[in-house]
Amino acid sequence: MSSFGTLFKVTTYGESHCKSVGCIVEGVPPGFPLTEDDIQPQLTRRRPGQSKLSTPRNEKDKVIIQSGTEFGKTLGSPIGMLVLNEDQRPHDYGEMDVYPRPSHADYTYIQKYGVKSSSGGGRSSARETIGRVAAGAIAERMLEKINNVEIVAFVSQIGSVSMNKDTQDESFIKLLNTVTKESIDATGPIRCPDDTVKEEMVKVIEKYRDSKDSIGGVVTCVIRNCPIGLGEPCFDKLEAKLAHAMLSIPATKGFEIGSGFKGVEIPGSKHNDPFYFDESSKRLRTTTNNSGGIQGGISNGENIYFSVAFKSAATISQEQPTASYDGKDGILAAKGRHDPSVTPRAVPIVEAMTALVIMDQLLIQNARKSTMDLLN
Amino acid sequence: MSSFGTLFKVTTYGESHCKSVGCIVEGVPPGFPLTEDDIQPQLTRRRPGQSKLSTPRNEKDKVIIQSGTEFGKTLGSPIGMLVLNEDQRPHDYGEMDVYPRPSHADYTYIQKYGVKSSSGGGRSSARETIGRVAAGAIAERMLEKINNVEIVAFVSQIGSVSMNKDTQDESFIKLLNTVTKESIDATGPIRCPDDTVKEEMVKVIEKYRDSKDSIGGVVTCVIRNCPIGLGEPCFDKLEAKLAHAMLSIPATKGFEIGSGFKGVEIPGSKHNDPFYFDESSKRLRTTTNNSGGIQGGISNGENIYFSVAFKSAATISQEQPTASYDGKDGILAAKGRHDPSVTPRAVPIVEAMTALVIMDQLLIQNARKSTMDLLN
Amino acid sequence: MSSFGTLFKVTTYGESHCKSVGCIVEGVPPGFPLTEDDIQPQLTRRRPGQSKLSTPRNEKDKVIIQSGTEFGKTLGSPIGMLVLNEDQRPHDYGEMDVYPRPSHADYTYIQKYGVKSSSGGGRSSARETIGRVAAGAIAERMLEKINNVEIVAFVSQIGSVSMNKDTQDESFIKLLNTVTKESIDATGPIRCPDDTVKEEMVKVIEKYRDSKDSIGGVVTCVIRNCPIGLGEPCFDKLEAKLAHAMLSIPATKGFEIGSGFKGVEIPGSKHNDPFYFDESSKRLRTTTNNSGGIQGGISNGENIYFSVAFKSAATISQEQPTASYDGKDGILAAKGRHDPSVTPRAVPIVEAMTALVIMDQLLIQNARKSTMDLLN
Amino acid sequence: MSSFGTLFKVTTYGESHCKSVGCIVEGVPPGFPLTEDDIQPQLTRRRPGQSKLSTPRNEKDKVIIQSGTEFGKTLGSPIGMLVLNEDQRPHDYGEMDVYPRPSHADYTYIQKYGVKSSSGGGRSSARETIGRVAAGAIAERMLEKINNVEIVAFVSQIGSVSMNKDTQDESFIKLLNTVTKESIDATGPIRCPDDTVKEEMVKVIEKYRDSKDSIGGVVTCVIRNCPIGLGEPCFDKLEAKLAHAMLSIPATKGFEIGSGFKGVEIPGSKHNDPFYFDESSKRLRTTTNNSGGIQGGISNGENIYFSVAFKSAATISQEQPTASYDGKDGILAAKGRHDPSVTPRAVPIVEAMTALVIMDQLLIQNARKSTMDLLN
Repeated sequence: MSSFGTLFKVTTYGESHCKSVGCIVEGVPPGFPLTEDDIQPQLTRRRPGQSKLSTPRNEKDKVIIQSGTEFGKTLGSPIGMLVLNEDQRPHDYGEMDVYPRPSHADYTYIQKYGVKSSSGGGRSSARETIGRVAAGAIAERMLEKINNVEIVAFVSQIGSVSMNKDTQDESFIKLLNTVTKESIDATGPIRCPDDTVKEEMVKVIEKYRDSKDSIGGVVTCVIRNCPIGLGEPCFDKLEAKLAHAMLSIPATKGFEIGSGFKGVEIPGSKHNDPFYFDESSKRLRTTTNNSGGIQGGISNGENIYFSVAFKSAATISQEQPTASYDGKDGILAAKGRHDPSVTPRAVPIVEAMTALVIMDQLLIQNARKSTMDLLN
Repeated sequence: MSSFGTLFKVTTYGESHCKSVGCIVEGVPPGFPLTEDDIQPQLTRRRPGQSKLSTPRNEKDKVIIQSGTEFGKTLGSPIGMLVLNEDQRPHDYGEMDVYPRPSHADYTYIQKYGVKSSSGGGRSSARETIGRVAAGAIAERMLEKINNVEIVAFVSQIGSVSMNKDTQDESFIKLLNTVTKESIDATGPIRCPDDTVKEEMVKVIEKYRDSKDSIGGVVTCVIRNCPIGLGEPCFDKLEAKLAHAMLSIPATKGFEIGSGFKGVEIPGSKHNDPFYFDESSKRLRTTTNNSGGIQGGISNGENIYFSVAFKSAATISQEQPTASYDGKDGILAAKGRHDPSVTPRAVPIVEAMTALVIMDQLLIQNARKSTMDLLN
Repeated sequence: MSSFGTLFKVTTYGESHCKSVGCIVEGVPPGFPLTEDDIQPQLTRRRPGQSKLSTPRNEKDKVIIQSGTEFGKTLGSPIGMLVLNEDQRPHDYGEMDVYPRPSHADYTYIQKYGVKSSSGGGRSSARETIGRVAAGAIAERMLEKINNVEIVAFVSQIGSVSMNKDTQDESFIKLLNTVTKESIDATGPIRCPDDTVKEEMVKVIEKYRDSKDSIGGVVTCVIRNCPIGLGEPCFDKLEAKLAHAMLSIPATKGFEIGSGFKGVEIPGSKHNDPFYFDESSKRLRTTTNNSGGIQGGISNGENIYFSVAFKSAATISQEQPTASYDGKDGILAAKGRHDPSVTPRAVPIVEAMTALVIMDQLLIQNARKSTMDLLN
Repeated sequence: MSSFGTLFKVTTYGESHCKSVGCIVEGVPPGFPLTEDDIQPQLTRRRPGQSKLSTPRNEKDKVIIQSGTEFGKTLGSPIGMLVLNEDQRPHDYGEMDVYPRPSHADYTYIQKYGVKSSSGGGRSSARETIGRVAAGAIAERMLEKINNVEIVAFVSQIGSVSMNKDTQDESFIKLLNTVTKESIDATGPIRCPDDTVKEEMVKVIEKYRDSKDSIGGVVTCVIRNCPIGLGEPCFDKLEAKLAHAMLSIPATKGFEIGSGFKGVEIPGSKHNDPFYFDESSKRLRTTTNNSGGIQGGISNGENIYFSVAFKSAATISQEQPTASYDGKDGILAAKGRHDPSVTPRAVPIVEAMTALVIMDQLLIQNARKSTMDLLN
């Protein structure tokens, strides 16, 4: 469905060729300062047309709060938000009427719904993510205030060019302590904090752009200062909710947390994160963090970090052999210019979905904790 | 929470040291033949103590249906099921009272709940998965009947020993067409269909077992004959629900579908799956399957396949330096014998969670489709 | 929360003094003809200022579809809708800043949320019902098409003036077979189908209006041609969902179905509805209908009928003794003119909430039925 | 479905002729003292066969906790509970195989599910309520501890014999302050606190029992010391959740809160509850309580009180004309002895469902409140 969350819940609407896209955010605590200015920056980071690396369509994506705030503060009621669709060009994709675009959602949407929207893939459009980013921005503002929670995502791989993201390497683990949205944006549109590879990544994207092709990548995300105790056994383990959130982003193919897929090669005796008593925080911490900040589905106070794989964009301008809806072989080439790599733009979307998960789990755990206090 | 699913929903209860573990399955269509014999085989496959490769505790895990069937047929009402906990040994883990086990859930559970259960990690126990497997077995029986859906999982990697699971390699893609539960079980307790590596995998596990250590692995799963059109945009894309389901299994660290993490290196022109008209099924199919059977979050009729990373088991018999709950350095070694690799036993759990996702999505899509038919 | 429904789900936003009020409707089957013209009539029926009997504020309440349709047909994606708040007068209620209005939501909202909105009662405003009515109109259009379902509500009581609504009286039971929205509207703003009492009802309202007071009433609703088999045991019995829906409408104090509260006086031997075989429909029907069309929580194919009590409107222009937020005794009188009876305007709201319940239950039962068919 | 609640959630299973009936309770805060002894009393109060007024079947209904507690304290994990079905007599109802019992669920269940259970009406059996009562007892224990919340239900009407339950009468309103479970039980099996009518009520029941008939009644319930601020606008207003809960109990036909249906006759100027400053509680209270303790869907700190109509039991021993499943006219008489009035036994069920609603809403409001505190 188009809703995500239990207590902190976003419901989105909108395709790429309708009046507006938007969302309703439920469960926002009252009395918190909030205006469009708190939300717009993440929408602007998500927007296409920011650089030569991304699609040049200029969508302004200006968010307008419809409800739920007064005099710059939240009321506790649902926050309605919308962004007008300025760039409505319902029939830019002539051949799409005949050919389902390979690896796009045209074919599956018509199979599922029996009707074809102008955009072909209906809600699979990247424009659908606007509502998520707007809602996530609200969650981020609140998490910052509550526990100084910091959520920072960045590009860690483009094609086969990867920064050092070996979770067994101390330098990577340290980097997770220091990256900020600002430092990431300062690296330019590539959004990669590793100076030794970012130019190469740019070149890879340019190469595929120039050959009317596209290339995938990996976004890595860290959550610092996540409160301890978030995540609901058994089915709503924190990593399960994060995986759900990430794989719901268009074009994603994988999720791994902590040591991830490489971690299966590390024996338990090395993979286990030993406890020690930390004098500054006056609590147990772990000397290593192969767990990625979650144990038994519950946050343990260490940095939570995970990576998300984004496939090469399906829409490319070069000719592709395929078949028409009625089964005839043919050749399809998307008109116009297209994003050669969606990965850098996915950074704020990954952050938004992360914030939605954490804020929802925080509310649920706070319900338990505050009620426990009343019982004792 | 302890519920999973919307229309086909399982709710589980039980720790490792209470009277029983069990579940309630809602949304089971009425009139379908079902007895304990349909459920027990998957529970038996999940059971520890099946071979030298796994923990020798002998739990019989015999499921008893409490409600929802009469004369061997489902009534449409909730199916209550339970398995008695025969092997109740509340205080086998003496040192655990002093030391939280590293990378286990002892520490996070006490932080979250403020109380410590005998088992330490409460619901993080592998015994919790019994309810999932019982519910999943019901879903599998129904999916077989409805569309001859086949769900087969197998071990594809142990430590750094991996079978050929290159999704760009045709031989792997073909193997996904042919593996069956029977052929997998015929490979012995290792449950790996690749004869060229399975002996080596066994040796790896034995090596870590003998050194009182543990090692991780990867389980790969294929869904054949999944109906087209399953998965709910935007937040409940089919891969998002599968990722949620898989990362809710204890000890998982990653999920990837189709081309997965390696797929980010493949340019769009090669990654896109071209359509062709298939004469036998009289519909469009794709010549390659990098998408892994899902496009735009919706099943497209090709094989759905994905992999799940399982970390090395946290409980090992060798001594580990750690700290006690009250912050003193110390040494912990788990008593008794422990599973050196949970990966092979995870096979039926992965299948069960897969079946739960598919059956739920099928009911939701059937609601839409049958109502559409009434509207036209 | 601000969502209602499982598969057919509406989520609303908006207070009386923000940019707009609106909703997102999920679960609408694709391919169905739908434009604003299908929705506006019920919104217009709900609108205040329609007659001397209701508040003279002139809100145009023009609905604008934001998403989910193209070329006048539904896409299967969420339908976003909004109505602009033209009449934004944030501080019309001077004394309200000092005094919580008795029996309004001012006091409870500030206790719950800790903040006070301009409107005092935030989401308790009748304007919130716009989103429900818009969503309900869509459901009604679909139900008409699917099974010729007819949902008709009407005023059956104002103050102590009641039409004959004795469920043991055959003439009332027959009336339920014949009333239509058109016949109800033809009775004028009072919306009562009983000519013998409707003038008296109007006089009662006028009397209270002239004395700056208000008066309550009862809305009765009938559902004809409801498909058999709707309602989900145990907790989501059809009458339970209807009761939930009705008591969520502002100003409601009671719900009764079939024989209702008077029915408790009828012994089982008379209250039971005997079965007979109906030749025209070729199925069992009942000779009486004390059950109100639902047995065991499931629709049985007879007319479903129920009544909803609406209290006298809390906002009155006459002076009322009360206390200020800070505890001082004082006198409060609402400025402006106010609705002396909300009951007639509640008619389309009752219909809308009814349609939302039935459409949702229909989708859930269709999921079961169509999947049963696949299993057999 | 068979689940009720969001954070405090019960899921039930079981028919009258299966191995056991039971439930899983999620969301129970950890560290709270809980044993079977805390739960059994309400189950015993619900049990049939307690007096000549109810059915003489002797079911022991002994609850066994399966999980979620250790050493007499809750763990925070789901609490599994079951009651064995000792009295399994699958084919006691010979004629039922031919005739659907009038106003029972036999006909609708077979229409909905396509299969017939031994019990005819499957989950419509009163035995299904055991799980609710067990779960409600847990909620009640916690609410008592948290805010000294008291939930007391009693019989206020049998047939046409009613105690004074005029909500405009001060003596009734005062009675709501003083009734306790103990004082109610002390009135004997009739469970009516009004000495002037209770003997007459008993006689009415005996009269219908002796004529092999049945008679309905009304249960009234009061919640004292309910925390202020519970209930979630718009769709989950506190009265909406209570109405949902009550109408989900078998045999209910109506719900009214505060002034209820009679209240529609009281003009706003009298119906409004004026505020005054209460010195003892140091907050605003109301001089009257027509609202029934809820305003704008949110509890205001006054007593919450409501009434629930129970129809005459459908199962009677006298002969009734009806039709068989295959459409032939015939005569049906239930064998054995049957409950001439289910109303007195419904008392603990009404209390249980009330407790489930309040505990769930408390957790949700605590989530908001404690998170607000963190934000300020």
